[in-house]
Amino acid sequence: MALLDDLRALLGADHVLTEAADVAPYLSDWTGAFVGTAAAVLRPADTAQVAAAVGACAAAGVAVVPQGGNTGLAGGGVPDASGEQVVLVLDRLRRVRSVDPVADTITVEAGVVLATVQEQAAAVGRLFPLSLGSEGSCTVGGNVSTNAGGTAVLRYGMMRDLVLGLEVVLPDGRVWDGLRPLRKDNTGYDLKQLFIGAEGTLGIVTAAVLRMLPDTPRRATALLALPSVDAAVALLPLLREHGGGELSTWELVDRQALELVTANLPEARDPFGEPHPCYGLVEYAGSADHVASRLEEALTDGVERGLVVDAVVAGSPSQRAELWALREGVSEAQKVEGATLKHDVTLPITDLAGYVAEVGPRVLDALPGARLVVYGHIGDGNLHYNVSAPVGDDDALRAAAPALTRIVYDAVAARGGSISAEHGLGALKRDAAASYKSDVEVELMRTVKRALDPRGLMNPGKVLPD
Amino acid sequence: MALLDDLRALLGADHVLTEAADVAPYLSDWTGAFVGTAAAVLRPADTAQVAAAVGACAAAGVAVVPQGGNTGLAGGGVPDASGEQVVLVLDRLRRVRSVDPVADTITVEAGVVLATVQEQAAAVGRLFPLSLGSEGSCTVGGNVSTNAGGTAVLRYGMMRDLVLGLEVVLPDGRVWDGLRPLRKDNTGYDLKQLFIGAEGTLGIVTAAVLRMLPDTPRRATALLALPSVDAAVALLPLLREHGGGELSTWELVDRQALELVTANLPEARDPFGEPHPCYGLVEYAGSADHVASRLEEALTDGVERGLVVDAVVAGSPSQRAELWALREGVSEAQKVEGATLKHDVTLPITDLAGYVAEVGPRVLDALPGARLVVYGHIGDGNLHYNVSAPVGDDDALRAAAPALTRIVYDAVAARGGSISAEHGLGALKRDAAASYKSDVEVELMRTVKRALDPRGLMNPGKVLPD
Repeated sequence: MALLDDLRALLGADHVLTEAADVAPYLSDWTGAFVGTAAAVLRPADTAQVAAAVGACAAAGVAVVPQGGNTGLAGGGVPDASGEQVVLVLDRLRRVRSVDPVADTITVEAGVVLATVQEQAAAVGRLFPLSLGSEGSCTVGGNVSTNAGGTAVLRYGMMRDLVLGLEVVLPDGRVWDGLRPLRKDNTGYDLKQLFIGAEGTLGIVTAAVLRMLPDTPRRATALLALPSVDAAVALLPLLREHGGGELSTWELVDRQALELVTANLPEARDPFGEPHPCYGLVEYAGSADHVASRLEEALTDGVERGLVVDAVVAGSPSQRAELWALREGVSEAQKVEGATLKHDVTLPITDLAGYVAEVGPRVLDALPGARLVVYGHIGDGNLHYNVSAPVGDDDALRAAAPALTRIVYDAVAARGGSISAEHGLGALKRDAAASYKSDVEVELMRTVKRALDPRGLMNPGKVLPD
Repeated sequence: MALLDDLRALLGADHVLTEAADVAPYLSDWTGAFVGTAAAVLRPADTAQVAAAVGACAAAGVAVVPQGGNTGLAGGGVPDASGEQVVLVLDRLRRVRSVDPVADTITVEAGVVLATVQEQAAAVGRLFPLSLGSEGSCTVGGNVSTNAGGTAVLRYGMMRDLVLGLEVVLPDGRVWDGLRPLRKDNTGYDLKQLFIGAEGTLGIVTAAVLRMLPDTPRRATALLALPSVDAAVALLPLLREHGGGELSTWELVDRQALELVTANLPEARDPFGEPHPCYGLVEYAGSADHVASRLEEALTDGVERGLVVDAVVAGSPSQRAELWALREGVSEAQKVEGATLKHDVTLPITDLAGYVAEVGPRVLDALPGARLVVYGHIGDGNLHYNVSAPVGDDDALRAAAPALTRIVYDAVAARGGSISAEHGLGALKRDAAASYKSDVEVELMRTVKRALDPRGLMNPGKVLPD
């Protein structure tokens, strides 16, 4: 294949992988649900090499699948089964180009791991707030391309809200240098917005200027035992009124989720003496000690209004870590327990409790014995509405999965919600998303895709149906 | 003209203005620098009428110029001189559709005045932070379409950061309903971003879902006398370190600006006993009284490091208003004083002082006696680098204007800044912006424009050169 020879000349033969053992790690996603094949896996060293490689592929009419830390849950970063696509991995673009504690910006290349950005910010006394389970291996390019969310969105927003500028290799191999460290720039269309959350279908993000924020060294954290999801929703404005802008976390864990965590993760234990329908993890964070007294006031208020049944306040950093582990362990505990059907939905916040009340019985009707594992970022209206298999019967879940997902999504659509809050569409949800969107919206998306990638060579088959 | 008859049938004859006296207010912008003519001025009552009117214009091949509160400074909302364009005014779309203090969202139509949004949020104990001089007459549609900035960007971002969803009439008259109140929605391209800041060149924003934020009832405000712009920049991290996330304002006013204000505005007075090179207005805002002690600590620290020469701390709401008036009065004071050449630029923050030091002498070389009036949102890197005419010689300023603007912009471009921080491009800066951008960037912008408005009928001649 002449293209591969060209690519070897451009990148060095060591960085054009074609041996089965070498390419295997890049061909399947984290969930294992998507496995493809590829003509080659490319590991360019810098932006110029990315541009050269993309240009060569474009000239040859070969499709390119960009890949970051490969931690996605929607098959967005793996090739299809044709064997004709090329995977372009950004892991060698690892430079932290600059850290500026006056402008509060950090400029990094796409392959820099999220935890590194957090550490670089902390080293100059700042906070890079994006935080998610895979932060030790996911990369900035993927965070930008999927508009990553996580546990700090309530206060700081998604990755989109943290990006000031981008450098992008376009589908024809040209480089768009939009790497400006400016907070304000109204000189026409905000082009970077096109590439954030586009999952590599419009171009390849090679570097980003990110915002750093003031650090919040004082934290007050509690796990609350709640009578209902309704109470969790009603607590949101109460927690905001007491905490002001210092409310950083409001996460939900239902009883089933907590039971899976305490059953499957060795260090986890239920901090309450009796079971409760659900639990809320709240955190106030700021620069002054008053966050603790504010949280105490909020909890007293919540108890008085009958919204909080019991509460455990973290008295030390290690207690804080234990409470957080109950929330963060859910995904891992589910994996240990057996087959899981994952959903990542947003509802208008005021519809959340009604949604949960309605959908649960429907799912159980369709698959008796299924275990509803409902948790997530309730402050953002974002639920991970997962279903674990009936005990010992993974096959039943697999067989029922399409029907269950339909139940979950139909009820989201009926309430004007979103079937992908933070995981993106990838290959997994592209068809479902299109089926719930208006024709106008799907056509607008296609218009954008055709305009920027007229030959359809950038990560084809992702985000939009073919 | 058959189109006008159709429009009268669609909107009612009273809302298709063609008499010279009726249309005049809609034909010139706030600065008076842009005056056009129009075939008609349309005042549709709701989204359906906007869609019908745009559809009729598209069928007739007639260009549409959307207009909000007509407070822009770049000629973005007024028609050209051809007399063939139609102005579509959103002022009858004034409904506040909903206010939700649980989800912290407010849904309003395009013609709702910004101050109304602020008031609606305050009525439920929340803050809508966007704040700018024209807030009593500018409208949400214009705020969205120009990605408005103002004095709260340092803490809360631009209008873009406050928009959750949009309803937009597309260039062919179809309606895109993206009016979702969701904080997280990763189901494909974030289409609303296309229309935010597009100045009506890709479609007409008819409604928006906006975020409300926790109120900050406690405020600590001070005007600082500073030895230099350098000191103002060096104070930014210091103010952040003491104030954390509660630093809301860091504005600059230079000596010339303060003198114009105290000379021309009846209530304004210089609070210091002697003149200083420049002044900084700082505000900490939060929900607790500690903002006052924090500010005091910051000022002590600033004095010790030689960055603050003197300071006046507001002891009451009326004193706070007096200090703010010194900053907010600059634009009006300049107007009273005579001809003004306005610029609205962003620099990388660490380059601000060097920029001011370099550009001043060049401007004075080109126009001896010119008065440099430099002020703005220094915390965002955003300067209003204005030039007032030499005393009594407005003509000299007008003659030198192109050369002066060139000096101001060339130095911005050399430092990787932006020639329009918050005012947008409109007709005024479209050519200049294109001349400073890379070819790739201009072409990407044109690609987007062609894709969404292939016939070029939405606000033609704005943002991009013809």
